[in-house]
Order: sequence, then C-alpha cells, then structure tokens
Amino acid sequence: MAKEKKVEQITDMEVDFAQWYTDICRKAELIEYASVKGFTILRPYGYAIWENIQRIMDGEFKKTGHVNVAMPVLIPESLLKKEGELVEGFAPECAWVTHGGSEELEERLAFRPTSETMFCDHWSNILHSYRELPMLYNQWCSVIRWEKTTRPFLRSREFWWQEGHTLHETAEEAIAETEQQLNCYADFCENVLAMPVVKGRKTDKEKFAGAEATYTIECMMKDRKALQSATSHYFGDKFSRAYDVTFTGRDNKQQYPFQTSWGSTTRLIGAVIMTHGDNNGLVLPPQIAPIQIIVLPIAQHKPGVLEGATALKERLETAGFRVKMDDSDNSMGWKCAEYEMKGVPLRVECGPRDLENGQCVLVRRNDGEKTIVKLEDLEAAAAEQLKLVHDGMYEKAKQNLEEHTYEAHSLEEAKALQQEHGGFIKTMWCGELECELKMKEQAGMTSRCMPLVQEHLDDVCPICGKKAEKMIYWGVAY
Amino acid sequence: MAKEKKVEQITDMEVDFAQWYTDICRKAELIEYASVKGFTILRPYGYAIWENIQRIMDGEFKKTGHVNVAMPVLIPESLLKKEGELVEGFAPECAWVTHGGSEELEERLAFRPTSETMFCDHWSNILHSYRELPMLYNQWCSVIRWEKTTRPFLRSREFWWQEGHTLHETAEEAIAETEQQLNCYADFCENVLAMPVVKGRKTDKEKFAGAEATYTIECMMKDRKALQSATSHYFGDKFSRAYDVTFTGRDNKQQYPFQTSWGSTTRLIGAVIMTHGDNNGLVLPPQIAPIQIIVLPIAQHKPGVLEGATALKERLETAGFRVKMDDSDNSMGWKCAEYEMKGVPLRVECGPRDLENGQCVLVRRNDGEKTIVKLEDLEAAAAEQLKLVHDGMYEKAKQNLEEHTYEAHSLEEAKALQQEHGGFIKTMWCGELECELKMKEQAGMTSRCMPLVQEHLDDVCPICGKKAEKMIYWGVAY
Repeated sequence: MAKEKKVEQITDMEVDFAQWYTDICRKAELIEYASVKGFTILRPYGYAIWENIQRIMDGEFKKTGHVNVAMPVLIPESLLKKEGELVEGFAPECAWVTHGGSEELEERLAFRPTSETMFCDHWSNILHSYRELPMLYNQWCSVIRWEKTTRPFLRSREFWWQEGHTLHETAEEAIAETEQQLNCYADFCENVLAMPVVKGRKTDKEKFAGAEATYTIECMMKDRKALQSATSHYFGDKFSRAYDVTFTGRDNKQQYPFQTSWGSTTRLIGAVIMTHGDNNGLVLPPQIAPIQIIVLPIAQHKPGVLEGATALKERLETAGFRVKMDDSDNSMGWKCAEYEMKGVPLRVECGPRDLENGQCVLVRRNDGEKTIVKLEDLEAAAAEQLKLVHDGMYEKAKQNLEEHTYEAHSLEEAKALQQEHGGFIKTMWCGELECELKMKEQAGMTSRCMPLVQEHLDDVCPICGKKAEKMIYWGVAY
Repeated sequence: MAKEKKVEQITDMEVDFAQWYTDICRKAELIEYASVKGFTILRPYGYAIWENIQRIMDGEFKKTGHVNVAMPVLIPESLLKKEGELVEGFAPECAWVTHGGSEELEERLAFRPTSETMFCDHWSNILHSYRELPMLYNQWCSVIRWEKTTRPFLRSREFWWQEGHTLHETAEEAIAETEQQLNCYADFCENVLAMPVVKGRKTDKEKFAGAEATYTIECMMKDRKALQSATSHYFGDKFSRAYDVTFTGRDNKQQYPFQTSWGSTTRLIGAVIMTHGDNNGLVLPPQIAPIQIIVLPIAQHKPGVLEGATALKERLETAGFRVKMDDSDNSMGWKCAEYEMKGVPLRVECGPRDLENGQCVLVRRNDGEKTIVKLEDLEAAAAEQLKLVHDGMYEKAKQNLEEHTYEAHSLEEAKALQQEHGGFIKTMWCGELECELKMKEQAGMTSRCMPLVQEHLDDVCPICGKKAEKMIYWGVAY
C-alpha cells in the first residue's frame, strides 16, 4: 500500500507573500504550531539550521574571548524593577510565575524577557577589581515576550537566541565592544547567511529600553520590507549604578563599570527564508544547510547505479560535506521538488550513462544551473559549486537591496517611493522625534537606522525643513 | 597596589563532606547562587564543562540517528493532566505561569518539568504512517522542579539537561532503544567521565511517573553515597493512548506507537566532583576539562623562559589540546594550588634549566606523579599522560565502588554494613513494596536498582523470608 507522498504546492510569493512564507515554514518542516497559543515548535530540520547558526556564531564569539554562562530563567519582579526604563519596556510583555508547586510565591517571578538584570545582579556579587575586567559573557537560551500577534520565527511568545552581556573598565572599551559585536553580526550575515546588511544606529525612539545607544543591522526581504536582524547596545554605566555593580579601580577607588549587550535570535531563519526563498521553496546558504548536497541516483534499478551513487555520497562525506542520498521509490520529479522545497544548495544526479562516461551532473538550487563534472573532480567541483551558490545568493540579495534603496527630499516623495516600490527610503533628518512620528503617520514608515556610512543628501530635514546633519533610512518593518 | 590573590582553603572532605563539596563548587568558580531562592548560575568554568559534556554526548546521540528539536517551555495544565501518573508525579513540583503581560491567562501554564506531554501532543499532529517511524528526538534545555531543599548541581529548582523522546512501531524496538540509551549513558560515564556505573532497573516505587520500566545508572561517590546519574524509560503505548498518538500500520490499521524517554542533567558535574575530587579541589576527567593542560613557566623573568614556555603552549594547542599558560605575577605556589583547585588534569612546568636541558616536567593532577619529558616528545607525552590521568581516575573510582559494595543476608546485616561502611549493600529481594519500605524505615536505605548483571546470593528475601529471585542494590542516595 505504498502511497507516494506528493510535494505539496506552496503559494506563489507574488500572489501572497505572507502565505508563501508560512507555507515554507510548514512544508519545509521547519516549524509547527504548538497547542499553546503564540508558541512554536522547532522541528528537526529547522532546529538543525539553528544548530549550524549557533555553532558558527559561537565560534566567532569565542575568538574574541567571550565565554558562555547560564543564568536563571526567572527574575524577581523587584530585581526587574530596579532600572526604570528597562522595566517599562519589558514588564508589559512578561510571563509571570506566581506559584511554585502548591505554594503561592511571596513575590512573582518573570520569565526572562532579556537578562541584563540577572547579569548585573550576579556581577554585583562577584566583581571586585579592575583586574577581573572585561567580563565577556554570552548565553544561549530561550526568552518569552508576550506578543499579541505572532508569526513563525519573526515574532513568537517564546524564541531562541543568544544574549551577550559584557562589562568594561572604561566607556571607550565598552563602545568598542558594541561596535565589534555589531560588525561580528554583519560579517556573519554576509559571509554565512549570504545576506547583505545596512549597519546603523537606532533613533532614541527605536532603541532598546535602557540603552544609551542601540546599533542594528537591517536587511531587506524579497517583499522589500525591512527586517531588523540583530542589535548591539551600549549602556554606559546606567545599569551598574542601578544594580550597584562596582569595582576597585587602578586608582584604588570604587568605580562603576561600563556595559554592553547584544543579541540575535531564531528570527535570522525567517530572514534567510525571506531573503533567498523562491516559489519552489526554501533556498539555504550552504554553510547553515543541514543537508548541503543531495545525491539522486537516476534509474537506480539499473546495474551499478546505486553502487556508483553510494560511492559518490561516501566520497563527499569523507570530504566533509553534509550529504544525503535518496534512493527511495519516489519519482525523480518528486525528489527534485522535495529537496528544492527543503532548500538543499546542491543536487548531484547520476544515472547509468553518466557513470559509464565517468561523470555526474551538479545542479545549483539558487539558479538551477547545471554543470557536468568528471567523477575524479567531484570533491573540488562540489566545493566550487557551493561557493558559487553562496556568492550567487549574496549578489542577488545585494542587488535587491541596492535597487530598492531610494533617495527622497520631501515627505511626499518618500511616501510615494514607498508606495510605488517599497524598500528603504533614505533622507536627511533633523533628529527630532516629531518628524519621526510624522513619517510614521503620513508615510507609514518607521526609522530603520542612521547608517554608519553617511551620505550628504541635502542640508535640511525634508519633514520640518530645519537644519539636518544626519542621513536616515526609513522603511516598513516586520 | 597589586594584591596577590590567595587560593582560599577548602574544608577537608573527611571533616565535612557536604561543606567540602560546596567549597569546590564555589571556589573552583563552577557555580554561584542567584538571588532567586533555589536557583543557581552556571559560571563560565562550570558552563564550559557542561559544553564539553553536551558536545560529546550529542555526538553520540547523533551517531544512532537522533535529531534535536526545541519544544515550547510552557505546558497547559489540561495537557499535562491527560496522563494521570505523570501529573501526579510532577504537578506538585511545577512552577505555574498565570499571567501573560497584563492579562490573566484563562488556563495556567506549567514551566516544563519534563516534556513527554509536549512531544506526544506534537506527534499526535504530525505522525501519519509507520514509514515515519521511528522518531528519534532529543532536546537540550532547562527544566524547573520546585524542590524544597536544593544543592548545587544535585538538586536545584532549575537545572539544565537533555531529554530524549522516541516513538517506535513495535514494543521490541522501543525496549531496544531504552537499553541502547542506557548503555550510551553508561559508556559516556565510563569512557568520558571516568566514572564506573552500576546499570540496573528501578523498582516500581522508584520508577519515573508514568513509565512501565525505568533503567538507571548508579554511581558511588567518595562519601560512599549513591548518585543516580542518568535514567532511561520505557513507556509502552500508555502515553500514545492518553494523547491519542496514532499511525497507519503496515496492515493499514490505526495503531498506537511505543515510546521511550531518557535524560541526563548538569547533575553529572556534581557526580564528577564527588567521584574524583580531593582536598586540593576539583579533579577533572581530561575529555571534559575546559583547560586540559596548564603551562607554568618557572623563573619566568630569566631570559628565554617565557619564549620557551610560549612555544610549548603553542605546540600543544596546535596538537589540539585545550591549553592555558599562566605568566602572571602570582607565585609558583599560588599557581599550582589554583590550577589544582580548578582540576586541570596536566601541568607543564618549564624553567631555565629545563629548557637548557631540552626538557620539561609534566605533573598529573590525579596522583601528583611527575614525568620528565624531552621537548621533542612533548605532544605524544602529553597525550599519554592525559590517558594515564583518565585511566588512573577510573581505576581509583572503580576500586571505591568495588571495595564498598557489600553482600548481606538479613536486614540487620544490611543495616550494620551501611552504618559501618556506607556504600552499596546487595541482597536478594522478593519484589514486594512492603520489604522495600521496611529497608527504608529500619536501615535508612532506598533501593538503587536491580542490576542488569544479576548474582544468586540466596533463595529468600532477607527482609520477609519469602522466595526471592532478584538481586537488588540498596544505598543512601543523594
């Protein structure tokens, strides 16, 4: 009674981008909804992508001296409340534990929405001398923020992330750390996820609750909406003062250390889907793909084919690639569609004639390009093709970003450009909240960031007409 | 104003074992208490040990086809209550979320104490056919159990663990999985943690809430108390029926799959401390040691010493060891004590005369043995010494286990042996709960397990005098 499983159709992105996105999340088996509203399950294929992201990113963090720790998940309300801005920003989104076992707690405990408070509380106990600085900590965990509306990977009540928290002797060192980690994220997005980014600073309105400065990397999705993909915050000594974190300085006096935090989340998987995916499904950057190469034997019942394909698979595995061979009874058409849906970067096809001729065919997921390869060159050719996949994906995404970044000199022009093309609209900005709010009200765009690489477009703010020295990016954001 | 940090004294284990244990946890900087009662912080050095455990164990799980997933951390009370025994066992220990943001929830949510219910709920949505079986899932996460009394690593309200959950077509396959994973834990303890184990089956009284059978590995600590170090459970189709998990079988009929779960936790770090530690501090098995080799230059201000030591350090790093060099101003005595406290398995000492003679000294942490090594042989000698550290630690722990496992033929004898020597007392057992309770009441011992390797000690139960076919281990447990 073997029923052939059919690859189910997904909605075209041009027809309904949101539905296309959800279809990929479900049909590539990345995610499933849980029976708790607003919560999701990361399925094996989705989690394997996250494991690859974690492994590579964690290695980068460690190269610059960061170490991992594990902090308690529950935060007493009184501890959370010590820093006013932070609690204002996060308390409305906290999940509260009020009972432990059968007893009602004297004080309710928040499931961590972020852990600045816990790190500060810990540091206030263990930090003594400038000799112990810097403290460069990170943790991988999940957090809860009780969002009203949720979408897989982009916004869910629980999500998985890393949160870096560091303490420094001087403001300069802390600012350098904030920048270093922003660059670390940007490099990761470009070199690992094949996603170009715009690096910049958030406005006061958009910055993290309690931060002195928030830096961000902003990516453009295929529907030309913006996705904030990671952030890095500089806190000055604000939290140190609120949580009484001090150390004995070189001058033998008590001082407050300077602090940063920086985070990235499973949202990066959503960014990958919407940056690279197409109407056949997911397109995965080779470095995070759970399966990098799928080997498909053609006419596998003919003598020698399965043995030949198996040998190729084993050679590729030995060379260090993540490889799978599918010798199931499903049709070749089904298999091609299935692994396209799953976003496998490279397909190796080999049939009886190929093997006879000492060759096989490599097919790239991102552009469908086929290359005939001599069997003896397989490993080198696979490595080269995977590099071409990455580079091709990056170039295409970069083209999307560049083609849809527009310059405007009036609010009306900005609005018209956004309505016609979407994308990022760059203008000058006077720095006033009022103008930022006006752009939101009248053109439906929020500020994305003030790019680190500034351009002089004009002398005045296009919204109020006053003097403006900063260029800013606007967009419609997820 | 450089103050030399002194290595603080720890309590001798013979004086106060519990205090000795706590001293190591704190002074080796493994753990710190959090401001939430019963919760702990895994500090960088403690977390690095856990990362090594995770990496190696996860690799073993994957070799046998297991994949990782992430399930939501909150479980609706109604879902938790579907299986009666499980909820009875865990509900009294749950932390309950009652508010999300500012709204009171319609139904309260438990922070997962264990995730059988979530996995079953998920499987009931995604499982269709026998072709999808087995499902071999695992997740790394933290859980909360609202314990009344807590101790670092051994029992805390939040702890970090892995929980494997698998579904199988037949009971035989599920039983084989249960056994395979028990053996996986036992091999890990012996080959990685240098801890010998007793493998066995738990009595009905001691088994996991809801399981048909629970298997355990029991280790003996240096104070001769027992520590349950990992468990593996067979559920039959009980949860499948409770959560309506079904699949279409080979006969085209709806069937209930058979299930297992298995877990190990940060408690393993507590086991390592109490199995191998001594009055100078921690003694770490080389495979999980964050620093495997500490290089200490002697008379480092003499010409050539620091360069020579740095070269050795770099060679060892290149060879793949985890190495640190300490060229701080602290005295040699302080440094030796510090890295002994931290349990670093191997110390490399090199002074001006050593370097002149083309040699250095390797000192093993576990037994203090010194070996003079020619510089050209360094890498091979270090590998050999680390193997000797592991083997020496294992042999010593095995000796402790074997010397303190006693045979008894009456309840009185069992009690006297425990009082005089501690350790494991083996007897026959009739299988009745009444006798198990009597042993607890009168001799203060709980059943540890019915070892998989049985011996025939006698024909009758030493407690009731009735016929007995099973040998059982008793002990005082953590």
